[in-house]
Amino acid sequence: MTAADAVEEGQEFTRIRKLAQLFASDAEAVQLGIGDDAAVLHPQVKPLVLSVDVAVEGVHFDRAFLSWAQVGARAMTAAVSDLAAMGARPLAALCSLVAPALADHDFLALHAGIAQAARDYACPVVGGNLASGAQLSLSTTVIGTLEGPGLYRSGARAGDEIYVTGPLGSAALGLKLLQLLAAPAEGASFVEAWRGPRARVEQGLALSGTASSAIDVSDGALADLGHICEASQLSAIIEAERIPLAPGMSELAYHLGLDPLQLALTGGEDYELIYTLPPGAADPCAGTRIGRMINAPGSVQVVDAHGQQLELSTRGYQHFR
Amino acid sequence: MTAADAVEEGQEFTRIRKLAQLFASDAEAVQLGIGDDAAVLHPQVKPLVLSVDVAVEGVHFDRAFLSWAQVGARAMTAAVSDLAAMGARPLAALCSLVAPALADHDFLALHAGIAQAARDYACPVVGGNLASGAQLSLSTTVIGTLEGPGLYRSGARAGDEIYVTGPLGSAALGLKLLQLLAAPAEGASFVEAWRGPRARVEQGLALSGTASSAIDVSDGALADLGHICEASQLSAIIEAERIPLAPGMSELAYHLGLDPLQLALTGGEDYELIYTLPPGAADPCAGTRIGRMINAPGSVQVVDAHGQQLELSTRGYQHFR
Repeated sequence: MTAADAVEEGQEFTRIRKLAQLFASDAEAVQLGIGDDAAVLHPQVKPLVLSVDVAVEGVHFDRAFLSWAQVGARAMTAAVSDLAAMGARPLAALCSLVAPALADHDFLALHAGIAQAARDYACPVVGGNLASGAQLSLSTTVIGTLEGPGLYRSGARAGDEIYVTGPLGSAALGLKLLQLLAAPAEGASFVEAWRGPRARVEQGLALSGTASSAIDVSDGALADLGHICEASQLSAIIEAERIPLAPGMSELAYHLGLDPLQLALTGGEDYELIYTLPPGAADPCAGTRIGRMINAPGSVQVVDAHGQQLELSTRGYQHFR
Repeated sequence: MTAADAVEEGQEFTRIRKLAQLFASDAEAVQLGIGDDAAVLHPQVKPLVLSVDVAVEGVHFDRAFLSWAQVGARAMTAAVSDLAAMGARPLAALCSLVAPALADHDFLALHAGIAQAARDYACPVVGGNLASGAQLSLSTTVIGTLEGPGLYRSGARAGDEIYVTGPLGSAALGLKLLQLLAAPAEGASFVEAWRGPRARVEQGLALSGTASSAIDVSDGALADLGHICEASQLSAIIEAERIPLAPGMSELAYHLGLDPLQLALTGGEDYELIYTLPPGAADPCAGTRIGRMINAPGSVQVVDAHGQQLELSTRGYQHFR
């Protein structure tokens, strides 16, 4: 072992100890957290829901637009959002970091962001892995418990109405603002929507047992709704004028030369839930009805107020490259 | 969307469909595998054990020495080994790949290796994530059920005897052979020990309830035993001449100018279990006794046949760089 290796190894052990403190949790489910070969959770009487999500620097996010804490919190949100889309309650997370050498304060800020999001979602981090690599990536695995029957992409029926929990395209507009203006003077709420999104856990729990299908908007509403169509072997008709937009979205988008509808339908990372309800069913989330499922091979069509089909130039979120 | 993006997206969906087929499992525990926002497992009456492990190309492995299938299988083994070290039975895995563009046959060979290991360990892959990145890394999360009281690093008592399930240093010698000779004419069993290691799941299950502590040898026997010492607030005395070596190990190591004892004590990736038993307890694994725990602040000492302390020049596995 060289002196540099010894320093590196000592640093790694010190960091793992700090993470064990940072991620310490008194959550009832956790029998043993960080510090052994694996974590131990108490038995769960409900079905278990598992998902993993990865954020790669330069692919999924640009560090110039985010604090370290935001990088960490967003990674947790993206993973927890998959639990929300299943109607699951977060139970625990494991965070695995591949990164080049990071200064201590950056390393700790990143993990403080993860830890804050873990508290916000009541999803304690019980394990992880640190590895060196040329490009930073953060892999987050979440486990949750299924509450009620759960939400699946495959459950939509012809005639079901399509809803969304909140406005679409805000995060995409926020990212565009940062990309075009670096330090935008207006549109702070859109920048915040992109920098600090929230997983719709409570909405997912409320929908389990009522909604016939659901998915979270991570890649873009059209692309994600397309997964429901494919899994349910149906098509979706979206009424463009029903798409909810945040206040000021249209004006700001047009001001930047952007099409607000396109941002709303193809922008990703809003983490709103899109879901289907049987016709006439009460919506426990007070969402916005945006269309209906029809009996045709899986596709998503967008129509205007006159029922005329609209063409959009992109159908899914383009990862930052 | 550009034509290239469309091809890429189409390729991704095609690949995800192929993975869903490759990883399809009729395991009783799996309620819903790959294809929705998350996987669903049936409720488990036993405590849950969770761990994540990452393999980074150029850091943890050199592709020149491994087939794609071996890269995949080794990643699964490293993760499952943490379950073995806890006395847990594998239940399911999630595999997350960050990689530059891979040819279809390489992509499929990598995942075929994962799938084969998943079958071998009865640990079906129920989820994953594909992301592009400059450097290949494979993050594997495993979940298992704790059988019996489990195995912890912190349970060793002064006077406990230290055992190991099998020979040490074989994988390290195998890697050295590849590094020094590229295509070694002899020592195939050592090369195989490094290329195709196995997690000691059955041994971990057998030890749960009997062993007072355990860890798997991933970083090197001294480093890993050091974790038991630290967690148990004890020291370990290892008797060098008791360290089990595979047949032919010493001769081949000396022939290469290497110290077999050093390989055995500091070489990683053997995935044997090191464990402690109360004095006189029967060993359910028929392992080899290599030392004892003593009441002193956490350190690992290696002594010769005369009780004289030996010095070793490295204390842990050096990741491939």
